Amino acid sequence: MAETDGYGDPTKIMVAVNESSLKGYPHPSISSRSAFEWTLSKLVRSNFSGFKLLFLHVQVPDEDGFDDMDSIYASPADFKSMKERDKIRGLHLLEFFVNHCHELGIKCEARVRKGDPKDVICSEVKRLQPDMLVVGCRGLGPFQRVFVGTVSEFCVKHANCPVITIRRNADECPQDPIDD
Amino acid sequence: MAETDGYGDPTKIMVAVNESSLKGYPHPSISSRSAFEWTLSKLVRSNFSGFKLLFLHVQVPDEDGFDDMDSIYASPADFKSMKERDKIRGLHLLEFFVNHCHELGIKCEARVRKGDPKDVICSEVKRLQPDMLVVGCRGLGPFQRVFVGTVSEFCVKHANCPVITIRRNADECPQDPIDD
Repeated sequence: MAETDGYGDPTKIMVAVNESSLKGYPHPSISSRSAFEWTLSKLVRSNFSGFKLLFLHVQVPDEDGFDDMDSIYASPADFKSMKERDKIRGLHLLEFFVNHCHELGIKCEARVRKGDPKDVICSEVKRLQPDMLVVGCRGLGPFQRVFVGTVSEFCVKHANCPVITIRRNADECPQDPIDD
Repeated sequence: MAETDGYGDPTKIMVAVNESSLKGYPHPSISSRSAFEWTLSKLVRSNFSGFKLLFLHVQVPDEDGFDDMDSIYASPADFKSMKERDKIRGLHLLEFFVNHCHELGIKCEARVRKGDPKDVICSEVKRLQPDMLVVGCRGLGPFQRVFVGTVSEFCVKHANCPVITIRRNADECPQDPIDD
């Protein structure tokens, strides 16, 4: 059933993606798009049947568990609908990537998970065993990194598969490089 | 003249390779072979015209400049022949990789350079601008790494292109993991 390029199972590439800090959902961050576009143009190229992309979007829960402080939660159902709405936002984000793959005929899967991105990415790598992991990064200096977290650096060190980090192009970098 | 898969210039992958610490020249180290085989099976796959491999072998000069302490150097010509012999050893190592590519019909180039591997690799990345760099690594723990140097870690941080580090398979690891 699964057609390949005749060279064994497709190469499974996990691509970690997040939402834009500037435009919010459903827009992917600049670095997620860069990582995705790089994967297509430099690795997959014309070999659509030779690769399978596993998109993973990890949603960070608010510290207090509330996404909108001005909302009123009057019943357990309200909380449930909030969680569902979060998940739907995540799915809308993934739609961008899945649609693009579908148009090209590249097999893919997409997942939304909750938690600390660096931990969840590494545990999903363990579970799904991709051949490699692609993560975007903002290309910040050491000082900026301290305040932003370093998901890509953590994954390079701890993920249980080869990891490649793709920086945004300089011309796509917003005025404040911490934005994405 | 240059045929590709119809998706623009081939993806240029630089692969840094070294000799086996156990078997010496012309045998490639286990981690170099792993990195090469991974590149072929997971990235190039069937798309032979979509990729071009740039092999780079960096020879480390002995601290005292002598490779064989029991040799006699009686004239400038002796030193010259020593240097040429080193270079020939490096070329024999590269032959393994180039032959393999040639058999498959994958375009490649191969270079021998002298110097500190981590610096030379990074400067060759700047000069040749590959789309990505593949480096093998022994998968040593932090304590072992201190004594062996960490070419792969240095390149991940400093090379001017995306870098992917490929570990040896556990079953290919020699008794002493520092051997390669």
